[in-house]
Amino acid sequence: MFDCVALVGATGAVGRIVLDQLHARKFPMRKLRLLASARSAGTQVRFGDEMLTVELMEPSAFEGVDLVIASTPDEVSAEFTPWAVKAGAIVVDESAYWRMDPTVPLIVPEVNPEAVDGHQGVIASPNCSTTQMVVALAPLHKAVGIRRVIVSTYQATSGAGLAGNVELESSTRASLDGQAHSPETFQHPIGFNLIPQIGSEKHLGYTSEEMKMVHETQKILGDDSIQVCPTAVRVPVAIGHSESILVETREPITAEKARELWEAADGITVVDDLNAKSYPMPRDCDGKDDVFIGRIRQDISSDNGIAFWCVSDNLRKGAATNAVQIAELLAKKHQPAAR
Amino acid sequence: MFDCVALVGATGAVGRIVLDQLHARKFPMRKLRLLASARSAGTQVRFGDEMLTVELMEPSAFEGVDLVIASTPDEVSAEFTPWAVKAGAIVVDESAYWRMDPTVPLIVPEVNPEAVDGHQGVIASPNCSTTQMVVALAPLHKAVGIRRVIVSTYQATSGAGLAGNVELESSTRASLDGQAHSPETFQHPIGFNLIPQIGSEKHLGYTSEEMKMVHETQKILGDDSIQVCPTAVRVPVAIGHSESILVETREPITAEKARELWEAADGITVVDDLNAKSYPMPRDCDGKDDVFIGRIRQDISSDNGIAFWCVSDNLRKGAATNAVQIAELLAKKHQPAAR
Repeated sequence: MFDCVALVGATGAVGRIVLDQLHARKFPMRKLRLLASARSAGTQVRFGDEMLTVELMEPSAFEGVDLVIASTPDEVSAEFTPWAVKAGAIVVDESAYWRMDPTVPLIVPEVNPEAVDGHQGVIASPNCSTTQMVVALAPLHKAVGIRRVIVSTYQATSGAGLAGNVELESSTRASLDGQAHSPETFQHPIGFNLIPQIGSEKHLGYTSEEMKMVHETQKILGDDSIQVCPTAVRVPVAIGHSESILVETREPITAEKARELWEAADGITVVDDLNAKSYPMPRDCDGKDDVFIGRIRQDISSDNGIAFWCVSDNLRKGAATNAVQIAELLAKKHQPAAR
Repeated sequence: MFDCVALVGATGAVGRIVLDQLHARKFPMRKLRLLASARSAGTQVRFGDEMLTVELMEPSAFEGVDLVIASTPDEVSAEFTPWAVKAGAIVVDESAYWRMDPTVPLIVPEVNPEAVDGHQGVIASPNCSTTQMVVALAPLHKAVGIRRVIVSTYQATSGAGLAGNVELESSTRASLDGQAHSPETFQHPIGFNLIPQIGSEKHLGYTSEEMKMVHETQKILGDDSIQVCPTAVRVPVAIGHSESILVETREPITAEKARELWEAADGITVVDDLNAKSYPMPRDCDGKDDVFIGRIRQDISSDNGIAFWCVSDNLRKGAATNAVQIAELLAKKHQPAAR
């Protein structure tokens, strides 16, 4: 049980769901405070039957806070996190800013819950594309070892926040009506289009989003020898990231065995019956917490490979749900301090 | 110069473009006839300044025809092709029916034009997803040899014909308006969704569309040792198939060298400057004949690999344009017979 939890970024696309999840999962806390920049301070936000007022986030705002769950841009996280840690809070941060810091655990509770013990005040939640992928990879990695991952993503517009979905709708309507439409959130028109760029150039022609999938996967699975070749693509879908994944394993594994491992794993739902037209699709996964896996096949291009299709709600397991699950891990260990 | 060319399926999504291309490219023929089933017979169709009347396709309709260009379902091709060949015509067929017949050349003119010489009356044009991929693969295969291809597709709704695009629009509008919508052409709602199934189960959990990409690629490149692992996905885009491709080559090749080979190749346009937000997208490739390649990168998960993104108008190079190009190869060799 935490005395006081602060939510930073409660009015954003992910923050709203964190709020819902804290309520729905009956998160063990006595008090919840909402913090944000001057732009949102003063806003009233519903939490269950209560109305909470968003407070201005400044260094003194973290006094008495035990736990912070934050969903903000990287530069905001860089600024406020030291304030919160100095005030004695543990920060569960969804931004990319701390993820690759060697002193910061990067956690997916189904995969590496034990890493939470090493924290020094900050715990990071991974990139949305990485989270659902490592949930899928972990049971295979544990059973037969993963050597290499080739992944092509089909990422929803809500990955760019509420503005992404507003632009998907306006761009789509403009296209249906034969009107011109200038993109603001995305690099190009997203309605009835695909944009093979998420983030900016980072390494050898790979984008920042793609390199997150390389480095975060290695860190979470605790194995830098795992090779990852990602291609990240924005698609005209509102909610739910999809991934076409080919895994090469160290030991051979059949598609049937992979399916068994996934069916037995926490946080995974297998939806896989091609003849019944049954497989995961973003529309069906919207609003659900699990990672959904289907189209499970033996790789027909190598000896030790499994191909599959993986979909998850990027705002939930990809962000809010994972952060709340990390907070639940902390809650189990937390002894309230005398203040 | 052909005396008489017959177009079968002129009122379909691809047939309309074949008609446009025959006119725009000034195809060498004295007479054009349009043939179709009883449903379309009698329809008037514009060809340049002329209005042509669609005639009923029956065995006697092929008398005096030198060349047939056909865009029909497989079962229609199975029926009419023997009639046309018996009447002495050469058939360029876009259906899947004859493609894997060992007596039928499967041609992409930039890749294997020489195979046209072996025909016995029927020449097949490949599946749309395969055509754009082999155009991209051929220069690499020639230079350094291709060992393996891992491809995830992002396929437009027009791949399912005019009805596919009608359904994309109605499904999207229903979703925007919060209305229910029952799919007819696709297995599931396509508006703001992804459907990871094109075709039906064919081999070890791979679909018919996916297995076409395996077998047709091997046949066109003339190398059955090339391994292909495809995942075919329908996306809410009207025109233009996109593919995220990882190629493993026999000899090492740099991304720079691959780019040079593609820039020098016929039928390929390289659009590749990530920092300038420049890469192929379906909206930009709609209505163009080339195969567009971008996001060219060294594979960071293997020693001999190139990752890239490939987009082409599935109704043009993926279908109509390729068939007309095959017909042009034949026209160069054709000596009109005395009748």
